[in-house]
Amino acid sequence: MPRFPALSAESNRLQPAVFTRLLPLLRRLPEAPLPLHIGDTFLEPPAAARLSAVTSSEDRALYPYSSPAGDAALRDAFCRRWTDKGLQGLEIPGVHVTVGATGAVQAAIRTFASPGDDVMILAPFWPLVRGITLSCGANPLQVPFYDRVRGGADVTALLEAALTPQTSTVYVCSPNNPDGTVLTAAQQQAVADFCVRHDLWLISDEAYCDHAFAPAAHRFIANLPGMSARTASIYTASKSYALAGLRLGFLVGDPGWLELARRVSTHQVYNVPLVCQRAVQAAIETGDAWVQDARAQYESAASWVAANLDARFQPAQGGGYVFCDVSGELGDKPALTWLAELLVEGVSIAPGVAFGSDYERWVRVCYMSLPLPQLKVAIERLNRSLARLRRGESLAYEGPSLELDLGGLS
Amino acid sequence: MPRFPALSAESNRLQPAVFTRLLPLLRRLPEAPLPLHIGDTFLEPPAAARLSAVTSSEDRALYPYSSPAGDAALRDAFCRRWTDKGLQGLEIPGVHVTVGATGAVQAAIRTFASPGDDVMILAPFWPLVRGITLSCGANPLQVPFYDRVRGGADVTALLEAALTPQTSTVYVCSPNNPDGTVLTAAQQQAVADFCVRHDLWLISDEAYCDHAFAPAAHRFIANLPGMSARTASIYTASKSYALAGLRLGFLVGDPGWLELARRVSTHQVYNVPLVCQRAVQAAIETGDAWVQDARAQYESAASWVAANLDARFQPAQGGGYVFCDVSGELGDKPALTWLAELLVEGVSIAPGVAFGSDYERWVRVCYMSLPLPQLKVAIERLNRSLARLRRGESLAYEGPSLELDLGGLS
Repeated sequence: MPRFPALSAESNRLQPAVFTRLLPLLRRLPEAPLPLHIGDTFLEPPAAARLSAVTSSEDRALYPYSSPAGDAALRDAFCRRWTDKGLQGLEIPGVHVTVGATGAVQAAIRTFASPGDDVMILAPFWPLVRGITLSCGANPLQVPFYDRVRGGADVTALLEAALTPQTSTVYVCSPNNPDGTVLTAAQQQAVADFCVRHDLWLISDEAYCDHAFAPAAHRFIANLPGMSARTASIYTASKSYALAGLRLGFLVGDPGWLELARRVSTHQVYNVPLVCQRAVQAAIETGDAWVQDARAQYESAASWVAANLDARFQPAQGGGYVFCDVSGELGDKPALTWLAELLVEGVSIAPGVAFGSDYERWVRVCYMSLPLPQLKVAIERLNRSLARLRRGESLAYEGPSLELDLGGLS
Repeated sequence: MPRFPALSAESNRLQPAVFTRLLPLLRRLPEAPLPLHIGDTFLEPPAAARLSAVTSSEDRALYPYSSPAGDAALRDAFCRRWTDKGLQGLEIPGVHVTVGATGAVQAAIRTFASPGDDVMILAPFWPLVRGITLSCGANPLQVPFYDRVRGGADVTALLEAALTPQTSTVYVCSPNNPDGTVLTAAQQQAVADFCVRHDLWLISDEAYCDHAFAPAAHRFIANLPGMSARTASIYTASKSYALAGLRLGFLVGDPGWLELARRVSTHQVYNVPLVCQRAVQAAIETGDAWVQDARAQYESAASWVAANLDARFQPAQGGGYVFCDVSGELGDKPALTWLAELLVEGVSIAPGVAFGSDYERWVRVCYMSLPLPQLKVAIERLNRSLARLRRGESLAYEGPSLELDLGGLS
């Protein structure tokens, strides 16, 4: 039993985000690079969801505690809208309002996975899910998946080969962050069958459910036979309505286990601020046209990137990113060293290792963080840097050592 | 390794709040009882902290992600104000913004206590701390304390008798929820000496730091020799500024361990909504007069309750509650049965068992949840019910069985 100054097992398992190693350099640059490393949008949220629109009446209810489960009016609006989208069997007791998708994934993993369990994380994955799993004392079992599937690999074979006796839970994300894969109906069915066959819980991160591009289409995996009781479906106003700053997500599933997830959540945050819930309710009730327009804009950006980014990647079928294999360009150069050079060249992208330990020589490029004209400038800078790497040229740069800024880490 | 439908060890350790057993009855009553069971204030927050005041400019920064550590301007405002109050050595890197005191206690316990550790919780205590400790896989070691100390018991003797080899962390709260105890300088020094002597971490919940009533005074335990490095000090806008609905707290301490606590917090909520941070910043920068007035109102209420509540309790020295030993009145009657009768009689109070398993025949009475005229009505109802119990009379009531509504639980 370690006491002061020793810290807990849980906290010692958590690492800072890889990108933070680049921050000291970023802060020293005379001009901020164009930000393609982030996971957020340049779009402004729906007008009805503006905070000034939901606070003008000086509603006294905004200041005391509110329901740990979430406001009934918001949960009702969610049920109606997501029922319209096709999610079956939705009722208010099956919806819990969380602090973003982060809070929802956190509560779901803590509810399904005990310390020592393996959580099968289909990779490349949303970076925080690894740390969340570690913080639960569980083991993130990273399964290279989406890039293999896009390359024609069989879903069932990939999953069966990765299964361990300790696996209790699977984490899947479609449309996927970081690579824009949208699973087909057949692929999704194979994931579902695997969960049913092995009595596994499923955490289905559907943060980008509103941003699948035809002919790809978002489908609700919880609708498949045998899945409703075992699936935690997760949604977020961050991606659906450009409201990341309000930190509001939805954890959806069977009221039986959801009651326990609610207790987990109550002990972490008690309730979500009502002002944020009011804004998201307005977005849900009035934001359909906004969502259609946002999807069209993201799709245009994704198409432009697919045609113009001179790198090795699968075109996005949804979401907000492409994930590029730059091993050919990097040669012996550590990925983070190139990302530091890129900052100097005026564009920032995210290191692949954040999305899975198998992806150290990949990078994630966000195409929704800038309007198209600026996105084009950023991608051109990225293309020039990749061309420089291919020609084996050094960065033309006179300044403090980039290596030093990385602390020797790759 | 249990799979679906088995749930995790962590979630299975968490229980719903005791008071929820009364909710079905509460919902059936023709008129809502006067609410003295809650932990919130009737006061409106400082005008400058109203959400309409901080959202009128349509600040675009409110909608994207913001810093997981908290907004620098808020942290700076906190440092200045709390330095003025007397907390020493405060710097921005030593302040982390959390989702309420709940988020702060959650992050602190997860950072200090490993699974299997004992966390010494001085009782009676804020109800969520027990579940938070359980959710970390640690053991809540409940130490009857504040009532013993008010009765003249020696702090050091109480603590030494309770210490186990597995203890890594102590949780203390002053001014205390639920009993209004404010530790004296000598008592606080004894707690500090105990932590130093046994290499223990200290979580000092100072949610009610602005509400100690003279001659009692709030003192910062982190200022004592040897305490700064081992103390997590916790504050909240919920109690300081009547902003519970905004869910904003502060976790304060040495930047070394705080960096790990920040990682824990980042994996639970990512960041706190900036709109809430802006409102609390305004409260901190302009709310001094408001705080003085609020304290005066609470102190008046506490004085009135001390003189007029006909029960066995120590007068509040701070905070917002008194904690009453009603074992004499209850006789053989289960406490929850009486609380159900009280609902029918028009007043709700909180069951003592929520504040520690040694306090099953105690109740918490909040005196800050109603303006004084209504508080007086509520206390008179409470007095009448206590008198009825003392006379051995039954509740005059014709309606559905109260026992049935409690599910036979006491």
